[in-house]
Amino acid sequence: MAENNRRITIKEIAKKAGVSIATVSRALNDRPGISLETKERIQRIITRSGYRPSMFARNMRSQQSKMIGVIVSNAANDFFKDVTRAIQDQATKYDFTVLIINSDEDPVKERQAIKILRNYDVSGFIIASTDETIDYPSLVGNTPTVFFDRAPKSEIAQFDTVLVNNEFGAKLAVEELIRQGASKVGIVVSGVQTSGQERLKGYKQALKEYQLPINDKLIYTSDVQQLKAMDYVRDLLVNQKCDALFAGDNTLLMVVLEEIKLLNRTDIKVATFDNITWFNYFKQPVISVKQPTTTIGHETVDALINRMKNPQLPPKVRRLSVQLIRRS
Amino acid sequence: MAENNRRITIKEIAKKAGVSIATVSRALNDRPGISLETKERIQRIITRSGYRPSMFARNMRSQQSKMIGVIVSNAANDFFKDVTRAIQDQATKYDFTVLIINSDEDPVKERQAIKILRNYDVSGFIIASTDETIDYPSLVGNTPTVFFDRAPKSEIAQFDTVLVNNEFGAKLAVEELIRQGASKVGIVVSGVQTSGQERLKGYKQALKEYQLPINDKLIYTSDVQQLKAMDYVRDLLVNQKCDALFAGDNTLLMVVLEEIKLLNRTDIKVATFDNITWFNYFKQPVISVKQPTTTIGHETVDALINRMKNPQLPPKVRRLSVQLIRRS
Repeated sequence: MAENNRRITIKEIAKKAGVSIATVSRALNDRPGISLETKERIQRIITRSGYRPSMFARNMRSQQSKMIGVIVSNAANDFFKDVTRAIQDQATKYDFTVLIINSDEDPVKERQAIKILRNYDVSGFIIASTDETIDYPSLVGNTPTVFFDRAPKSEIAQFDTVLVNNEFGAKLAVEELIRQGASKVGIVVSGVQTSGQERLKGYKQALKEYQLPINDKLIYTSDVQQLKAMDYVRDLLVNQKCDALFAGDNTLLMVVLEEIKLLNRTDIKVATFDNITWFNYFKQPVISVKQPTTTIGHETVDALINRMKNPQLPPKVRRLSVQLIRRS
Repeated sequence: MAENNRRITIKEIAKKAGVSIATVSRALNDRPGISLETKERIQRIITRSGYRPSMFARNMRSQQSKMIGVIVSNAANDFFKDVTRAIQDQATKYDFTVLIINSDEDPVKERQAIKILRNYDVSGFIIASTDETIDYPSLVGNTPTVFFDRAPKSEIAQFDTVLVNNEFGAKLAVEELIRQGASKVGIVVSGVQTSGQERLKGYKQALKEYQLPINDKLIYTSDVQQLKAMDYVRDLLVNQKCDALFAGDNTLLMVVLEEIKLLNRTDIKVATFDNITWFNYFKQPVISVKQPTTTIGHETVDALINRMKNPQLPPKVRRLSVQLIRRS
């Protein structure tokens, strides 16, 4: 480890190299007017000293940190893992590094994360919002920002947003359950804005389409901590005697599968939003709505880069298609 | 959005508020000698202007950014997702925010990530190394650093490190395969240092223990991109006629399960390192070695905090216990 905690100054480098401060500065900034030998001597001193030109100082010069701050709302959700991965792949193409902070479904943490990343002068934000009522315009300021999965309230502000057809996807999945013979379909869905609410609409549309009654007892909205999700699923299976369940996302599917296993049931049809590779190997067949996680990641980065180049363009909301994966 | 891209200066704030620069400075630094009314007026101007005291400037004062930089080597690996989650939970207790960068199994990206995070003056690093030969001492300097999952070469430097009993865990899993009746156990394991190599040793020990021959044709070491992993698994199943397979981690298990499904085989016994909740719902029973991901996350943070407080203590390598999960 380095012997010494403080940073070496340019002055000290100049003294050690036996040159002027101006010469060190020329070497650091790769300017002419300095011999290769001197430059190499200075480089050796710098390397040994652990001197790092401050990122802040460099940003002051270039006004560009080449850094994208990504704030995801739930680190335990495989959907965000997949999208984050795609964001990184795409950001690399534009020579951006991705800094990730998880807000853990906590608006306080999300606001703090935005402040931290702004202080670090990130070039842009990609955010999965935890609370649609957050005052994003004042928080992100004029840092280009793109939302995905969950949009801020349009009354608050318009931002570039990448969403999927939640309503249509949920409708497709529930219709497939009915086509496979289900007559009493329960739903457990997340209470968050956009995704959760839209998926619930799709569920209701499918029932209407097949002229099945919409029964409030079969509809459960789960809090983000999912404290009661197991109770909800058990009620749907045991008391409400559902013959099929629709889980609003992969984290709720996990609860559904656990209850089905605990109750040792083999007669339940299951569908979910999200599609994880592991689903291919389940004993219980799971109909799933595959979100285009790679495209979502790529589009958020593309939208962000576009926004950086053209700040005056009107914000755009993109709705990407989902794909039904049938399993039986 | 803010109307104006550049930052307001203290001078401009002072002018707008009709006070001296010294007064603005007192307000910003929460010092006495300023009326509440003036302070609130300055605060309003600052809020409206979007002025943010630079994180860098604040670090210069406090020498503490309260930020931990986490560099994980593979964003697609569920093990890292679980450990990262635990790191965040524990860091929150100490009032640290966690910044995550994925190095994507690329030592070049890992080195770049360390440089970026050092420029951001993080208080410490938690790293899953992509290359044991990286010159960490010169890269991290005197920033407290803890490694997990994979350790740097001890000849290069000693760092606090949190590992698990890879060898023992792999031995337990392979022994369980043999106890369940397997006589020809193939292995596909990652080529990375520490985890991969130690798990291979455990596999060999189990075979020795049960007096089974160690056959090089049954041992495949996969590159990190897993380009050939499918070919390896197919060879083990089709040509080598293995009746059991041991996957070195959850990403390799995915390849094993895919091949078993494609070949429509129901006669193969499978074991793996790592234990993901989804494993409970598989058609193909999977014996798994559960790493204590929560404890790993907590211990890395504890070790880092301890290192910050006591920089002179000798580095410590912790080996945590794993747990065999039998499924059949």
